[in-house]
Amino acid sequence: MSLVVVGSVAFDGIETPFGKVDKIIGGSGTYISYCASYFTKNVKLVSVVGEDFPQETIQHLNKKGVSTEGLQIKKGEKSFFWQGKYHLDLNSRDTLVTELNVLADFDPVIPESYQDCEYLILGNLTPQVQKTVIDRLKKRPKLIVMDTMNFWMQIALDDLKVVLKMVDVLSINDEEARLLSGEHSLVKAAKKIQEMGPKYLIIKKGEHGALLFHKDELFYAPALPLADVFDPTGAGDTFAGGFIGHLAKTGDISFENMKAALIHGSAMASFCVGKFGPEALYELSDEDVQNRLQEFVDLVQFEINL
Amino acid sequence: MSLVVVGSVAFDGIETPFGKVDKIIGGSGTYISYCASYFTKNVKLVSVVGEDFPQETIQHLNKKGVSTEGLQIKKGEKSFFWQGKYHLDLNSRDTLVTELNVLADFDPVIPESYQDCEYLILGNLTPQVQKTVIDRLKKRPKLIVMDTMNFWMQIALDDLKVVLKMVDVLSINDEEARLLSGEHSLVKAAKKIQEMGPKYLIIKKGEHGALLFHKDELFYAPALPLADVFDPTGAGDTFAGGFIGHLAKTGDISFENMKAALIHGSAMASFCVGKFGPEALYELSDEDVQNRLQEFVDLVQFEINL
Repeated sequence: MSLVVVGSVAFDGIETPFGKVDKIIGGSGTYISYCASYFTKNVKLVSVVGEDFPQETIQHLNKKGVSTEGLQIKKGEKSFFWQGKYHLDLNSRDTLVTELNVLADFDPVIPESYQDCEYLILGNLTPQVQKTVIDRLKKRPKLIVMDTMNFWMQIALDDLKVVLKMVDVLSINDEEARLLSGEHSLVKAAKKIQEMGPKYLIIKKGEHGALLFHKDELFYAPALPLADVFDPTGAGDTFAGGFIGHLAKTGDISFENMKAALIHGSAMASFCVGKFGPEALYELSDEDVQNRLQEFVDLVQFEINL
Repeated sequence: MSLVVVGSVAFDGIETPFGKVDKIIGGSGTYISYCASYFTKNVKLVSVVGEDFPQETIQHLNKKGVSTEGLQIKKGEKSFFWQGKYHLDLNSRDTLVTELNVLADFDPVIPESYQDCEYLILGNLTPQVQKTVIDRLKKRPKLIVMDTMNFWMQIALDDLKVVLKMVDVLSINDEEARLLSGEHSLVKAAKKIQEMGPKYLIIKKGEHGALLFHKDELFYAPALPLADVFDPTGAGDTFAGGFIGHLAKTGDISFENMKAALIHGSAMASFCVGKFGPEALYELSDEDVQNRLQEFVDLVQFEINL
């Protein structure tokens, strides 16, 4: 089933306690697309880059089954650039540089061939752009998943609230859930946020896993405990890509199948953090993915006679 | 199967963002005993209190099936007292007062009727006392579980290392695992700590659940996401009590059954944090416990076709 991915395609500069890169491929749209391509070959990307963005990366995305018909390339302009530095525990980071460049006036174009979209995922972008994409789809997709971040809660809360009413699933981290709801308890936060629109809420807790809330139902997907985490950049986007990728592959949006989707997201994120940037997502085999999923089964399955 | 519990039986003064109590029942031995009594009626407590400790509490423990033949009552002396204040997020706390009193020269007595002990749990106490208890058991128990804390790593590391070589399971929190191993990654920390003696390591992560390591096997038990956490005091001891209680009840110390035991620990801890002190553990019904266990099944079970 066709999946439209909207998000940034960009450059990142990253410093972690384990190394530093000045300029590598990044962006929410990039991570989501690469990740989802392991589950469906019908991924359609909507984004914008400058003339400086490497053609090889675009061709590589195409090779993975990602259509880039909706990826605008702006002549004479530069791609979005983000630079950040992670703290020692990798759980927090400081943004050092944000150059919007082509993202400053991004006007998303939805090619005609994308209009059959059944699954839509809105990666982190201004709420205004996220709304525009939904408005420009002639038919409402079967499921709309949205990611966002604290920044938009601080400077564009009204716009954000409008989009929240238009989506089915919201994916944010624990601090963002607290900021958006004003509640410290994630259980209370989830209740308030579901009242803002999204029927399903994913709260990501980094190395502590992720929670899925829907009415009175609750599911918890762990993160895989890893000996080495090299670079957390893109882990949340990869998680979202695995989630929507599994749903688009199976065509089943029941809560039960969302549980499996969350585990897929968590498994794919566990690969992502092993290398700088999205590189770990470039050439995984089906066996790699299956084995990692099995590790999650082993990690949490238990038997109790009730 | 008989279970010997060693730990403090004491008074606590507790302040959380939700309330304050000057002096209530506390102590690792208390929490562990109350909790384990839900799974086996063959719990035997080794501890010491002063003349100020309420007879009603001792009688209540007896009523729950906890033998207090090994609980010394020191005439003219005072019970151990700890006072602490939790930070807003409840994940950290400051110790305000520690009055050792009877614990200062605690010389554990093992009654003859305790010598059939098959399961031994050493709650947080000086490593020296923990060692003495093991030495005074004529027959080594089938399984020895030990809890400890950062304080002993800082002031009695050599003694601690001696006891670590004598036990099967060590239960500590994530910060303590990092302190003891010098490794930030819990996976690396677990490897180092297992080399210090304990074949099984439980790393408690508070609201983020707990990990069980054994050789190359790994299991993760979540904590139940709660709308209200009132007082985290004793949650780790209750967790340990549920773990050893389930093992003692079933008599099965396989890794598979330890997974179920970890879930029992997590379930019991989720009750504990709902009230000040051990009160929430006083009068649970079998149905309460079964229903809570079912919540854990629902929280983490998923189906993936591999």
